[in-house]
Amino acid sequence: MTTDYARLRHADLPTVRQAIRENRYTAHTAGLGAGYLQANLAILPSAYALDFMRFCQRNPKPCPLVGVSDTGNPQMFTLGRDIDIRTDVPAYNIYRNGTLNGTATDIKDLWTDDMVAFALGCSFTFEDALMRAGIPVWHIENDTTVPMFRSSIDTVPAGPFSGKMVVSMRAIPEARVGEVRDISRRFPLAHGAPVHAGDPAKIGVTDPATPDWGDPAPIPAGHVPVFWACGVTPQVALEAASPPICITHKPGHMLPTDIPEDAETPVLHPNET
Amino acid sequence: MTTDYARLRHADLPTVRQAIRENRYTAHTAGLGAGYLQANLAILPSAYALDFMRFCQRNPKPCPLVGVSDTGNPQMFTLGRDIDIRTDVPAYNIYRNGTLNGTATDIKDLWTDDMVAFALGCSFTFEDALMRAGIPVWHIENDTTVPMFRSSIDTVPAGPFSGKMVVSMRAIPEARVGEVRDISRRFPLAHGAPVHAGDPAKIGVTDPATPDWGDPAPIPAGHVPVFWACGVTPQVALEAASPPICITHKPGHMLPTDIPEDAETPVLHPNET
Repeated sequence: MTTDYARLRHADLPTVRQAIRENRYTAHTAGLGAGYLQANLAILPSAYALDFMRFCQRNPKPCPLVGVSDTGNPQMFTLGRDIDIRTDVPAYNIYRNGTLNGTATDIKDLWTDDMVAFALGCSFTFEDALMRAGIPVWHIENDTTVPMFRSSIDTVPAGPFSGKMVVSMRAIPEARVGEVRDISRRFPLAHGAPVHAGDPAKIGVTDPATPDWGDPAPIPAGHVPVFWACGVTPQVALEAASPPICITHKPGHMLPTDIPEDAETPVLHPNET
Repeated sequence: MTTDYARLRHADLPTVRQAIRENRYTAHTAGLGAGYLQANLAILPSAYALDFMRFCQRNPKPCPLVGVSDTGNPQMFTLGRDIDIRTDVPAYNIYRNGTLNGTATDIKDLWTDDMVAFALGCSFTFEDALMRAGIPVWHIENDTTVPMFRSSIDTVPAGPFSGKMVVSMRAIPEARVGEVRDISRRFPLAHGAPVHAGDPAKIGVTDPATPDWGDPAPIPAGHVPVFWACGVTPQVALEAASPPICITHKPGHMLPTDIPEDAETPVLHPNET
């Protein structure tokens, strides 16, 4: 029996996780398990793990690392008491040799003893904080996907991982741009402060009405387009590195974790209960 | 010709780095190159690098990772325009099979194509911030080394890296403990908020007058012993892992970087000049 978004919207975190694990819920996770960190996912063969981890360390705004599995162990024990990375994401993208090759709702048949799973912070965290401060977030209010653009900003390469930074755009009332910068800077594990506010052309975005990913969003009069480093950046770097296999979350379909959004560090200590 | 501390105390960062590089300055770096991040150092064979990086990710308070070299490349290019990790630390400790085996003022003859260098944030950053807020830091005012203790707090293990957390202690006026917590939490790359304030026995410190490392410091009446995660923790974990070779900074003898202390991320972007 499948579960719909409306039923899970106010469910507690274990209920959300169980529905995802049993493939009863396979849709996007925006707003689910409120108050807890959600994470982007990248799973790689161990030969790529050190370079990918260096890539994340060198590009912390697009790739804020919040958890790394042991090689071959699907339990992400630093992110939750019972997180199995093979089943606990609603939908996965499977890349072979850098090309999207299929999707799945679990990866039990693909996980091997040689794989390492990486969890990366996502924008849900700072968007929640903006909305709590009374700042409208258009794409959420209108149930669309945030517009994303390939910018001219280079990432810092590591081994085979490189490429331009992908940025997401939110139109912010001119008077509140400074406040938005201050709020989002407080969330270094959710992309931090914007990378640019103002003229899109300055970061290589020639047509802000035509995003490379996601849906278009208006920039009303009196609003400034504000750009944040985006979690699609590692997917572009993964395509460039072209590993034989790579598994990511399907965009918007994140991993719910047991880490409170206001935790000082994204690590569940083994002594904690 | 050697350079003494007094001459470097107000010198600019390039002057400090050049004196260290030419072995004209081989003493501690407290207060040098003010305003810029200094870092602890751990250099390991590449076979240990992924597990050590996981150990740092899982223990971000004692091991805040601020930079990782490419394998075999001694240029720490994300931390500065011209940092050679073989020469730019005033004094190094050399461990073989987990045991301190000697010290050196450069490691040009020890660095190999198989090594990876890790730079970790250090407490100088938050101590500066405390002093700027008018909070006295006894060991700095008295030119001693901060008292450090092996606590009963477990680190989160990764591969062969494990062990108890080492903590440093500073006695804080009772009325200012909350303020101290708030200030230090703002520096996640410099150990962040304290791990404990109050009864030392609660974290396994039976005699706060007798530190395991560093010098004793008083806890005057009206003061609370406050404990922070300490950068000696990774050295204890490195001893446990017992790699054939491991090179660290000599405690107190840090790597000065080009990263401003108030930078949002510890990464010098290649496009920046």
